[in-house]
Amino acid sequence: MSNALKDYLDFCQNRVERALDARLPSESILPQKLHRAMRYSTLDGGKRMRPMLTYCTGKTLGIAPEALDGPACAVEFIHVYSLIHDDLPAMDDDDLRRGKATCHVAFDEATAILTGDALQALAFEILANDPSITATAEGRLKMIIALTKASGSQGMVGGQAIDLESVGTKLTLPELENMHIHKTGALIRASVNMATLAKADIDPDVAKKLDNYAKCIGLSFQVKDDILDEESDTATLGKTQGKDQDNDKPTYPALLGLAGAKQKAQELHEQALDNLNIFGSEADLLRDLSLYIIQRDH
Amino acid sequence: MSNALKDYLDFCQNRVERALDARLPSESILPQKLHRAMRYSTLDGGKRMRPMLTYCTGKTLGIAPEALDGPACAVEFIHVYSLIHDDLPAMDDDDLRRGKATCHVAFDEATAILTGDALQALAFEILANDPSITATAEGRLKMIIALTKASGSQGMVGGQAIDLESVGTKLTLPELENMHIHKTGALIRASVNMATLAKADIDPDVAKKLDNYAKCIGLSFQVKDDILDEESDTATLGKTQGKDQDNDKPTYPALLGLAGAKQKAQELHEQALDNLNIFGSEADLLRDLSLYIIQRDH
Repeated sequence: MSNALKDYLDFCQNRVERALDARLPSESILPQKLHRAMRYSTLDGGKRMRPMLTYCTGKTLGIAPEALDGPACAVEFIHVYSLIHDDLPAMDDDDLRRGKATCHVAFDEATAILTGDALQALAFEILANDPSITATAEGRLKMIIALTKASGSQGMVGGQAIDLESVGTKLTLPELENMHIHKTGALIRASVNMATLAKADIDPDVAKKLDNYAKCIGLSFQVKDDILDEESDTATLGKTQGKDQDNDKPTYPALLGLAGAKQKAQELHEQALDNLNIFGSEADLLRDLSLYIIQRDH
Repeated sequence: MSNALKDYLDFCQNRVERALDARLPSESILPQKLHRAMRYSTLDGGKRMRPMLTYCTGKTLGIAPEALDGPACAVEFIHVYSLIHDDLPAMDDDDLRRGKATCHVAFDEATAILTGDALQALAFEILANDPSITATAEGRLKMIIALTKASGSQGMVGGQAIDLESVGTKLTLPELENMHIHKTGALIRASVNMATLAKADIDPDVAKKLDNYAKCIGLSFQVKDDILDEESDTATLGKTQGKDQDNDKPTYPALLGLAGAKQKAQELHEQALDNLNIFGSEADLLRDLSLYIIQRDH
């Protein structure tokens, strides 16, 4: 990872942690257990990739981080709620998340369901009401429309539904791609689009290029995840190696072979860079981020 | 029930059924199972009390029903999502809802969790984007803020959390009231407030009176529910009589006695009417509705 990227990621992680903390209800407000669970699940964990993308896109467009705290928190709250619900026994049944007990283990299942529900409402309340946002009322509505579509039945939630039904089936490459485009891609695109929507006078072509960039890195992130799962040892990855294959989950290496999957990741990185050609050095962080995504070892 | 109220309720039920149907994704769109579950849980059932309140308040204020289809659907989608999640095995574990198998029984638990999540996103997408709404962008944002607050951790979801923790405990009257004010009262008030927010030039005092009216009928509805559970026979009520008492759930008759609970319902009805004193006959439907709530036998 480049030093510039590392420094900026550190800056963003600190910034979004404070911003999330400030927007979560205090544990002293009733109902305390629910608010404790919301804070437990959100704070002190995660790579914060989505808020980071919002801030890095903002930096490319000359938008101050101060004006993006609300949108960055909104996408992270949607992401956290989806993790809490995905981890439930009826879904992926995971006990550990970000090195901590999952919400339903640390609290209970009913609280985990309600915690996710409350975080979703909070995300949209922030876009409608947060004083950090300098966009017009119309701009706020565009952000809300983008985030509801990205997270709803034809976005993230739809992708999760497709994923649940695809375990044990043989997906074709277009079907696998369609699943990822919905399950994780939609929210990654929304994270970038929150920043473009925060700029009132943005050139639609610029917004489109950044959206395409987000599409490419959303997919390359998944391809790289599948590659890491196939070839890393368990110690480096921090989870059981080959878990996807054991679960008979469709993966890129299974469909394209390991070499084919690596080539696919490289191609997606190059496409991501192509979409940044209209920018100068102000997009270097986004370039470094795309490279990091396909070069990381965990 | 007055004939005028009965006719208007029939009109609203038909209207909102068509409006919900038109706003739900088609079953032919992927992911089909998720969209089938969203339609199954929403359509063809329920008293539609919340949409009805939106339309009746609109009629009082001279707002055409056409301009309230979006807000009426948004509150109903929030209500339906909360029922789906409340019925889950980890929550109330109910098999039947509105005379049909609950979502997790008809489909599966994972689908029920995702269906609720998708309906919540759809509710806010409608307020941000639905062409039926004639309010300004600022007006739409006020609706979104009202509905996120009413449904979030300090509204409906918070009330559900308080309810889960209060089973088997001895609540005081203020604690019982606080639970209901959050669990059901907040969304009932939002249903009325969606209509007042749809009127750009509304007198704040008029909006306040209608909000107070909604507070009163939200509570009288709960008091009457508790009374019905105590004294109805099982056949009329359509559920097992005395279920709340058996479950050691706190109720108004348990705290106030049956006569005291009936007096409380009557007082709330009179307070509701007092708040409508500023209106003439244009508020008769709201008056009839308040009376119906405390006189109904199921």
